[in-house]
Amino acid sequence: MPLNENNWFTEVFEDRTAFSVKYSEKLFDQNSDYQSVQIYDTEAVGRVLILNGCFMLTEKDAFIYHEMLVHPAMQFIPNVKRVLIIGGGDGGAVTEAVKYPFVESVILCEIDPLVVQACREFLPTISAGLDDPRVKVIHGDGAAFVRDTEKRFDLVLVDSTDPVGPAKALFEVPFYQSVKRVLGGTGAAVFQTESPLFMEGVFTTSVKLLREVFGQNRAHPYFATIPCYPGGLWSFTFCSELHNPRESSTVRQAGPAEPVRYYDPGMRQAVFSAPVFVRRMLA
Amino acid sequence: MPLNENNWFTEVFEDRTAFSVKYSEKLFDQNSDYQSVQIYDTEAVGRVLILNGCFMLTEKDAFIYHEMLVHPAMQFIPNVKRVLIIGGGDGGAVTEAVKYPFVESVILCEIDPLVVQACREFLPTISAGLDDPRVKVIHGDGAAFVRDTEKRFDLVLVDSTDPVGPAKALFEVPFYQSVKRVLGGTGAAVFQTESPLFMEGVFTTSVKLLREVFGQNRAHPYFATIPCYPGGLWSFTFCSELHNPRESSTVRQAGPAEPVRYYDPGMRQAVFSAPVFVRRMLA
Repeated sequence: MPLNENNWFTEVFEDRTAFSVKYSEKLFDQNSDYQSVQIYDTEAVGRVLILNGCFMLTEKDAFIYHEMLVHPAMQFIPNVKRVLIIGGGDGGAVTEAVKYPFVESVILCEIDPLVVQACREFLPTISAGLDDPRVKVIHGDGAAFVRDTEKRFDLVLVDSTDPVGPAKALFEVPFYQSVKRVLGGTGAAVFQTESPLFMEGVFTTSVKLLREVFGQNRAHPYFATIPCYPGGLWSFTFCSELHNPRESSTVRQAGPAEPVRYYDPGMRQAVFSAPVFVRRMLA
Repeated sequence: MPLNENNWFTEVFEDRTAFSVKYSEKLFDQNSDYQSVQIYDTEAVGRVLILNGCFMLTEKDAFIYHEMLVHPAMQFIPNVKRVLIIGGGDGGAVTEAVKYPFVESVILCEIDPLVVQACREFLPTISAGLDDPRVKVIHGDGAAFVRDTEKRFDLVLVDSTDPVGPAKALFEVPFYQSVKRVLGGTGAAVFQTESPLFMEGVFTTSVKLLREVFGQNRAHPYFATIPCYPGGLWSFTFCSELHNPRESSTVRQAGPAEPVRYYDPGMRQAVFSAPVFVRRMLA
């Protein structure tokens, strides 16, 4: 069945599969120095953010991705005062992070100001946290920022796009080492590590490199369904030299000030349970 | 980006979203009394089965759906000797069920012989279990079979299509009551209950009706990612008057004779953990 190009947006993945949404309006369509930025309004999934032709989020299910990037670490490791978010220019991860009253500062390092501008205007619920007085937005290269900063962080969240173009360096060992350095031995980092089903190579390589950098039992993948991403089954990897989320004896933080929709601490053991084929990939 | 109709197959869901695969060959394309049956060969996900324009399975990820329909119950409740599968003409659920040496008989009640014929010919790995001597295939209406049979079963698996056309009756109370009857108070049934994300109405109605029929704490939804289904996040519901999979003290069966790829008993608590928004839907 053909889809009318005038009101359907289609992301083609590796020229082999495609996901499409029918839209009622194209709200934003500009090119930055880094990528094309588009926002559509749809009946099915609310507004959608597209970068370089790829789905970044939909209003319907963005809560799954952003909560899963932020809450498992935030509700588990103690004393998260200083947060660094690399990428994530839509502001969704920031919005989840500032729900915690104990968070004192959030730095968002997003390379592309056009993403932040577009999301502030057209995705106000998702980007709302950017206006929190604890948040500072820096527009620059995330890998260079982490390499050069003198600051230390309790939690680093890597909310990257796929490992091509500007985000490629965010999947490489020098970046992982820099993140480990700014955690100062006590903090934790969470990396989005792609789909174990449709991007098996990137997923396994990322987790294995993170284990080389942080330690073999110090990088723990966890999982959620992200409907608009290729393969649907998505991974995040929690890394810490000090905290092990698979040990049940560890500390639990208080919950966020505002209610969550996807993750609460009762789900911790569940989200860190890998299907058999994923365990074999990483063995 | 337009997709060439000559080598892309697209499923449009509710005229709002669409999932597409590029195919190298159309292997089968016939109409039965009930539906159109198509099988394509693709580079991305192997062969795919399409019924009435909807993805039923792909060779790449069918193991997730079939294992999740069969193994959580089979590895949990004791003494599963007599199995009934409603729908599931592709044979994938049968193939998982006959991996267990303690299973003595499997009846597959599939309304459409053309599905079985097409899958035997073009999806031999998935349909392999149909040749097991313990298996009997009946072509007929699943709801009528369960209503009229004098037999009793230890495990009933309802591997239905969406609740339209021939499968509509498989989402209604009279069918649920018939399934309860043939379990004789001691067995268990598993129903595929659609996506809590993209088919919230069908999901919540199904689980609530199953709870009315089997008892409020006797119908337990569980979850997996099925990449080719709308919404990706998919549900199954385990029902039993006797066995509660959320109680950790219950029996564990031996594993299957052949290795699994998705589910083992270590994942039981994980797959039954519902995200917060799903718990609220069912509250």
